[in-house]
Amino acid sequence: MLKIALAQINLLVGGIQVNQKKIIQTAEYARDQLNADLVVFPELTITGYPPEDLLLRPDFIKQAKQSVLDIAQAVQGIDVVLGFPEKVDDCLYNSAVVLREGGLLTRYRKNVLPNFGVFDEQRYFKAAHQSSLFSVKGYSIALTICEDIWQEGLVEKNKQAGADIILTLNASPFHAGKIHQRESIVCQQAKEVGIPLVYVNMIGGQDELVFDGASFVVDSKGEVVFRAAEFEEQVSVVEFEAKQPIKNSCSPLYSEISSEYKALVLGVKDYVYKNGFKGAILGLSGGVDSALVLAIAVDALGADQVEAVLMPSKYTQDMSNEDAILEAEALGVKYHTIAIEPAVTAFTAMLNDVFTGTKRDTTEENIQARCRGVLLMAMSNKFGKLLLTTGNKSEMSVGYATLYGDMAGGFAPIKDVPKLLVYQLSEYRNTLSAVIPQRVITRPPSAELAPDQIDEDSLPPYSILDPILEMYVEQDKSVADIHAAGYQKDDINRAISLVDRNEYKRRQAPPGVKITPRAFGRDRRYPIASGYRGVIS
Amino acid sequence: MLKIALAQINLLVGGIQVNQKKIIQTAEYARDQLNADLVVFPELTITGYPPEDLLLRPDFIKQAKQSVLDIAQAVQGIDVVLGFPEKVDDCLYNSAVVLREGGLLTRYRKNVLPNFGVFDEQRYFKAAHQSSLFSVKGYSIALTICEDIWQEGLVEKNKQAGADIILTLNASPFHAGKIHQRESIVCQQAKEVGIPLVYVNMIGGQDELVFDGASFVVDSKGEVVFRAAEFEEQVSVVEFEAKQPIKNSCSPLYSEISSEYKALVLGVKDYVYKNGFKGAILGLSGGVDSALVLAIAVDALGADQVEAVLMPSKYTQDMSNEDAILEAEALGVKYHTIAIEPAVTAFTAMLNDVFTGTKRDTTEENIQARCRGVLLMAMSNKFGKLLLTTGNKSEMSVGYATLYGDMAGGFAPIKDVPKLLVYQLSEYRNTLSAVIPQRVITRPPSAELAPDQIDEDSLPPYSILDPILEMYVEQDKSVADIHAAGYQKDDINRAISLVDRNEYKRRQAPPGVKITPRAFGRDRRYPIASGYRGVIS
Repeated sequence: MLKIALAQINLLVGGIQVNQKKIIQTAEYARDQLNADLVVFPELTITGYPPEDLLLRPDFIKQAKQSVLDIAQAVQGIDVVLGFPEKVDDCLYNSAVVLREGGLLTRYRKNVLPNFGVFDEQRYFKAAHQSSLFSVKGYSIALTICEDIWQEGLVEKNKQAGADIILTLNASPFHAGKIHQRESIVCQQAKEVGIPLVYVNMIGGQDELVFDGASFVVDSKGEVVFRAAEFEEQVSVVEFEAKQPIKNSCSPLYSEISSEYKALVLGVKDYVYKNGFKGAILGLSGGVDSALVLAIAVDALGADQVEAVLMPSKYTQDMSNEDAILEAEALGVKYHTIAIEPAVTAFTAMLNDVFTGTKRDTTEENIQARCRGVLLMAMSNKFGKLLLTTGNKSEMSVGYATLYGDMAGGFAPIKDVPKLLVYQLSEYRNTLSAVIPQRVITRPPSAELAPDQIDEDSLPPYSILDPILEMYVEQDKSVADIHAAGYQKDDINRAISLVDRNEYKRRQAPPGVKITPRAFGRDRRYPIASGYRGVIS
Repeated sequence: MLKIALAQINLLVGGIQVNQKKIIQTAEYARDQLNADLVVFPELTITGYPPEDLLLRPDFIKQAKQSVLDIAQAVQGIDVVLGFPEKVDDCLYNSAVVLREGGLLTRYRKNVLPNFGVFDEQRYFKAAHQSSLFSVKGYSIALTICEDIWQEGLVEKNKQAGADIILTLNASPFHAGKIHQRESIVCQQAKEVGIPLVYVNMIGGQDELVFDGASFVVDSKGEVVFRAAEFEEQVSVVEFEAKQPIKNSCSPLYSEISSEYKALVLGVKDYVYKNGFKGAILGLSGGVDSALVLAIAVDALGADQVEAVLMPSKYTQDMSNEDAILEAEALGVKYHTIAIEPAVTAFTAMLNDVFTGTKRDTTEENIQARCRGVLLMAMSNKFGKLLLTTGNKSEMSVGYATLYGDMAGGFAPIKDVPKLLVYQLSEYRNTLSAVIPQRVITRPPSAELAPDQIDEDSLPPYSILDPILEMYVEQDKSVADIHAAGYQKDDINRAISLVDRNEYKRRQAPPGVKITPRAFGRDRRYPIASGYRGVIS
């Protein structure tokens, strides 16, 4: 019998020392508590993923290599399979090694380097073309890394080379539905080729990305015989007999809405703690966006680590303040109320001379939003709490937000959540416990920066806007395509011309959790100065 | 005799219609005024460079193709060589075509795709492996694109295939010294292989990049026989006889300091106009950074398009206000003075309750900077003028700047200019005409956010800081390397720990002109949440 441990752990990008300690502890646990013959870690274990331009630093690469040697010395009595950036002459490889009894038994270098979406692997690594097999207890085991098995041919090639089992080390980030895509591709490969696969994914938040874990083992018929939990660290063992994995526990898959919520919570938690903040702070407006962000923050950090600030103006309706207080109280969060009028009045007077003869426009709305930004950043600076922004993806898309105002903050939890999904996530969160008043979900959304303002004064209704944005931003559809899908040209042109014109705002936005197939940030790289206009007449 | 026109023009990324019009006019000029047989445009002429993720849009790729066909129809009687993104089945190529008498005579697909620094070409394009030759007036001419000729072998291969001349279409961005690197490599290739080369580069600013032109022709002995101007549009013709280019005019190369200044001016000019702003606005502190940015802005846009705002506080020294006024007057720029005290006082009172029992720290300094940010952004919003930030590269490196305060703005002209170079550029600008008072250059730099504050209270002197930063940020040197270069460990550790910790600020900074081998932005991609610490004990 062969026992393989899957080490689904949370790593810190760049944190070679802390990662090393965790790897050693995990390997010892797999050896001593799980009696595993072999423990498999995620892709680029030593450095975390993605290390980005740290990979260009010779000292960093040297430290990573030393760490591999140290781990080999430290952990014996179990085979350890882990990933690290391996420098050979002038070439850097995304490698996996097998450590056995103090030495390096074998190595594998990633063949297929993703260079799309959030991935930039060809910026750093050279692609290799060799397979790599090693033996444990009479099993011949092949190594692969992440993108390798998304491509036809490599699994087959390993089988032909004599492999009984294929291990794959992964850093596969979450987006809605990704897990089904992942399992479907791996199961199909296993079935077609007729070989079991052991898929180990990392978990944890890293800037814009969340790795969702859900490592799994599939038998040679393409059936999932083991699945680790989503969004949690887990070290488990799977037994193999007669070249097949033995049926084990399968953590159930969460519903899509539940997994999105969990991704947001984990993304916030890891961003706050990995960056060393003492909790989080946010502005609570009585609107649904900040209500949802508050719930996410509390679920991520605990109520005692979160503070809310109400900053009413003369345009703020009473029900907004009432609802904001209800939200804070329902979640047990400390809140402050600071009216912004004194600062707005001061700025208005200071600008009186230069603004003589001009008309009121969005400038005056932006001043209000920026006064709130100044207050929140002051509290963030003073108390060491990370300021969370509350803007959603629909707003980020069309620029319905104030730079240095409501966009001010270190992390934007729902930046990749379209408005309609904000409502769904709020309803979902209320099924766990009632924390967002129903009125907040049902009343028409408003920025409350002018008298009786509602979002629909400036934008198409979200039920029309969101599908248009998804097609334009995430699917690269043209106006003609979107029109053919049943939307009015006026609505489409209005929406996408706003998207085109607001790249400069997005460029200065804080990072947030990617939960859709294409988020803003590393995932979507647009020029600011651009003559491209999607609109058509 | 063969006449080849070099079309060194300024293109708009994404602006297929405007680019098409300019290409046609330029080609007609080359045919009718210069009697050229052939006109050569820069890389990706149709789309501008770099079009980034616009290349993922099927409608954009289709428009680009249609534009090539339209140009072929529109311009006859001259061979037109231009670049465009060419989709073939599912693959996209970075291609060059020769248009002759309404049709596509031949095409070349780029062989070597840069995927380092600011370049992401492997994200979009597939590399090809074929050469491409065509004939004009008995000359056999080979096509290459930019990175192709930086690699050994391709020039040789083309010569062996029978080429008499090699054309190369380029989008080669500026950094200090780049032009010498470029000419040296091309001249060496020409000399070694024994073949003349025609190098056409684009000019103009595009977000973080400035293309500096300086297109040139080199004969088969490796001598430059023609050079177009740096930083200017220019369409020129070079004659070939007996397979050699005839000696022509060579625009002299600017000194390094002069070319850096011109790059900054062109970068600002194109960012403002390509984004449709009505001029620029900036805060003028009396310090050297804002003095230099003002001069750049005026040289880029004209004095009537620029406005300055003095925003003194109780910590602002009289000489700062006096010098700021002298600067505005010397350049003939309209200026306003708005004291920030009323807003600072308002915020202080508003925060009084929540800040009870806390000590004064950088929070209070940040509030001042953010009040200035609110004022400047209000004026920018109201008058449609782009707000220029005035922070330099040393500050951006160590985070000596306030997010949403002095970092607020749409463009950061000197973001890639280290402080010592700020001084040199100021001295240089004064040699053209005296616009920056000497006292501004010689007095110790200060943020003036606290009583008697100077930068050296918080940072090592710039004469020490700047070389450390260059080694750490631009050259990936370790502390040990920098120490070996003669710097104190304390200074190094202080500087680089600040660099490591301030990635979150840089991520929200506006774009600025790249003038060094490695700028912040697309050029340097670091994780925010990171355990990497360069410091050593």
